[in-house]
Amino acid sequence: MKKRDLLGLRGLSAAELNRILDTAARMRAINERRIKKVPTLRGRTVVLAFFENSTRTRISFDLAARRMGADLVNFSVQGSSAAKGESVLDTIRNLDAMRMDCLIVRHGSSGVPHMLARQFPWPVINAGDGINEHPTQGLLDLLTLRDHLGDLRGRTVAIVGDVLHSRVARSNLFGLRTLGARVLVAGPGPICPPALAELGAEVRHKVDDVIEEADAVMMLRIQRERLGRAMISTSREYAAFYGLDLDRLRKGRPELLVMHPGPVNRGVELAPEVADGGRSVILEQVTNGVAVRMALLFLLLGEEGGDVAA
Amino acid sequence: MKKRDLLGLRGLSAAELNRILDTAARMRAINERRIKKVPTLRGRTVVLAFFENSTRTRISFDLAARRMGADLVNFSVQGSSAAKGESVLDTIRNLDAMRMDCLIVRHGSSGVPHMLARQFPWPVINAGDGINEHPTQGLLDLLTLRDHLGDLRGRTVAIVGDVLHSRVARSNLFGLRTLGARVLVAGPGPICPPALAELGAEVRHKVDDVIEEADAVMMLRIQRERLGRAMISTSREYAAFYGLDLDRLRKGRPELLVMHPGPVNRGVELAPEVADGGRSVILEQVTNGVAVRMALLFLLLGEEGGDVAA
Amino acid sequence: MKKRDLLGLRGLSAAELNRILDTAARMRAINERRIKKVPTLRGRTVVLAFFENSTRTRISFDLAARRMGADLVNFSVQGSSAAKGESVLDTIRNLDAMRMDCLIVRHGSSGVPHMLARQFPWPVINAGDGINEHPTQGLLDLLTLRDHLGDLRGRTVAIVGDVLHSRVARSNLFGLRTLGARVLVAGPGPICPPALAELGAEVRHKVDDVIEEADAVMMLRIQRERLGRAMISTSREYAAFYGLDLDRLRKGRPELLVMHPGPVNRGVELAPEVADGGRSVILEQVTNGVAVRMALLFLLLGEEGGDVAA
Repeated sequence: MKKRDLLGLRGLSAAELNRILDTAARMRAINERRIKKVPTLRGRTVVLAFFENSTRTRISFDLAARRMGADLVNFSVQGSSAAKGESVLDTIRNLDAMRMDCLIVRHGSSGVPHMLARQFPWPVINAGDGINEHPTQGLLDLLTLRDHLGDLRGRTVAIVGDVLHSRVARSNLFGLRTLGARVLVAGPGPICPPALAELGAEVRHKVDDVIEEADAVMMLRIQRERLGRAMISTSREYAAFYGLDLDRLRKGRPELLVMHPGPVNRGVELAPEVADGGRSVILEQVTNGVAVRMALLFLLLGEEGGDVAA
Repeated sequence: MKKRDLLGLRGLSAAELNRILDTAARMRAINERRIKKVPTLRGRTVVLAFFENSTRTRISFDLAARRMGADLVNFSVQGSSAAKGESVLDTIRNLDAMRMDCLIVRHGSSGVPHMLARQFPWPVINAGDGINEHPTQGLLDLLTLRDHLGDLRGRTVAIVGDVLHSRVARSNLFGLRTLGARVLVAGPGPICPPALAELGAEVRHKVDDVIEEADAVMMLRIQRERLGRAMISTSREYAAFYGLDLDRLRKGRPELLVMHPGPVNRGVELAPEVADGGRSVILEQVTNGVAVRMALLFLLLGEEGGDVAA
Repeated sequence: MKKRDLLGLRGLSAAELNRILDTAARMRAINERRIKKVPTLRGRTVVLAFFENSTRTRISFDLAARRMGADLVNFSVQGSSAAKGESVLDTIRNLDAMRMDCLIVRHGSSGVPHMLARQFPWPVINAGDGINEHPTQGLLDLLTLRDHLGDLRGRTVAIVGDVLHSRVARSNLFGLRTLGARVLVAGPGPICPPALAELGAEVRHKVDDVIEEADAVMMLRIQRERLGRAMISTSREYAAFYGLDLDRLRKGRPELLVMHPGPVNRGVELAPEVADGGRSVILEQVTNGVAVRMALLFLLLGEEGGDVAA
């Protein structure tokens, strides 16, 4: 049986994506029970190696692994020395020698999870690599969309903001296109360039254009340090041109879904009334995140392990 | 069944306090066993969110939750950005979306646990909020006093030090008064002001006055940065006027109990010989802390959950 | 039944060492299983108190304790205030009052584990104290050597580098001599002085001398800040005189084992081709580390507890 990993949504087939989403949908029930725990992964060692800070994603994976019954090793490095490629490999070789069953890895450099997946025999789950992919975020977004829209074929999803540097946007783009959705992107030219068409997106620039056509809109978190690169001088100016407030929301369909990968910069990419309003499914995304991660651990490590992903 | 929290000892009835203390007294046996673990909270997710540093209290809650069989998420923030009210709410909303069964929260601002308790459906335990309350510390102190003194009605407990800024002192004051004890307080005027009489304390200034009458004396930890506010220039001067050494101890009753919430500044509020001497019950307080926290988790989350506290 | 600790390899008999190694050899099988978990220490509280940083050793102990089924409290202090002797004792007294079954302690000052072992009733495992001993590292090295060489009587092990300040070297020296091996040491005079003969080592200075005679060579990690004390100005110079590269390796026996306690300074004490080459057993050492630590927890805490070590 070939070893499998979840390194990205690029290259996964619609059948593979749907199998993960179907499994995740079933996993949700566990999290709604009084006793949120199954013994499926008892005695399996799951390593969470985060070479980049992330409280939310880390806790989501942590809960997913615990609720599946696994033993968890948390390994976090903020320092710089251990962030060098050589050290990462050395660190993981040591953890491998202690015997592990699955690695969940986040790293600031694109491709690190792929490099590790080639070297080691256990499944690797990419928890975000550089500006490449964040596939579990993509999957939880797909699950949330599917809950509200059903079959995504012919549906339109807009992604707004710094699409160029967003691994969330990239994973969504690959997944959405594979499932037959249309993807519109909008944002300041330098960080939402025409070349994104190569990934299957329809590139617009005005937010209003994409809002009108979309069934759902994903507002990306803007990094304040990227504003300059986007030729925008303040976050207030960003909000005026690219943020989603109630006025802009009214231009969309009445049932338009508002999504965000979190944490939200309230008043920048999303007005507080929109982030917390009736169209927002942001907290459903978070709930689905735990289920998606449980599903992946189940599919990659459980009895049926081995046929999920590329 | 109404949701219940433990936000403070203020407002709890004597019956409610005694129910918690009786449960804690039974829980102690678990911690003395070879196998210190019961399955009561198996599969329940308890979140420890500490927005203020505290190794001891955190480990005490951690052990209490584990020994009851719960799954634990440790979330600590020392940074400043996440310490703002808005971020706290956002963080907890996310954890709620991942499904949790109980929140144990410490925060530097008074009232944060109450704000969260109003917003969410699961029980909230206050692990210390600003200068308001530290109710689990109050409960472990009451349990320790009850062990040695029996019924606290008519007993006299002295609290010495920075009573004004001490959430430990406040929780004790509320609990002790409800259980019928008399509370004397002493300390430098600016941090032990006459207004404390409004909380039911008898305000003195000289330590010697309260020592003579007390069945037990709680020495509060003095924060060095508060010395100036207390019109005292060095910790040596504080020790001379308000510290408890063997000479001062001799002025009290032979069976006077010496208590401290820890960690002790040896040589400041307590002489080492007193902290480690035969009248000190400081380590019994620590032992009782785990039992009190297990009792609360049991009462708030167990089958009988729901009728402990305000 | 007398309480036992593992404070160092000095003073342990060959029978005691072999009993630990035999138990560790049996424990290895657990780590190779799909379900890497036994219930032996269920409900026992193991405290990992690291007053000095160490990711690898900490994770190794953590996995060992979890796989034996224990509950684990991780207590790490990098700060300086808690590193003072008085604070350590206070901290551990508090953890003791919360009821613990075993303390695993690392501290920058030699003798801290011994001081704690005298004060408390539960077993203490030394995870490295100052420049004194690192007995679990010594044991995992002995196990690795025994795997390859069988009976160590009459075998020759070389230790190269800063032997004077290495607790790893000291634990190995004691263990190897007790098991009948000959120990050669080599390194710059000031950090590998003649006085090491008092510990049973044969002191050489040239690496080539010891390589030729040895069945195994342990290359110690050089601390860059110690280079000056060794009268050596750069790590390149260190590598030239004391590092092990392929040329030097060829002067040894064809089956010479290359060992290192990790993490390796590649290109300083070990050339990368040697660290990752066919003679290197560095990752086997890491694998054996988990097994040795499980064995100690079993022997000190399990039903048979009490007759392992001095």
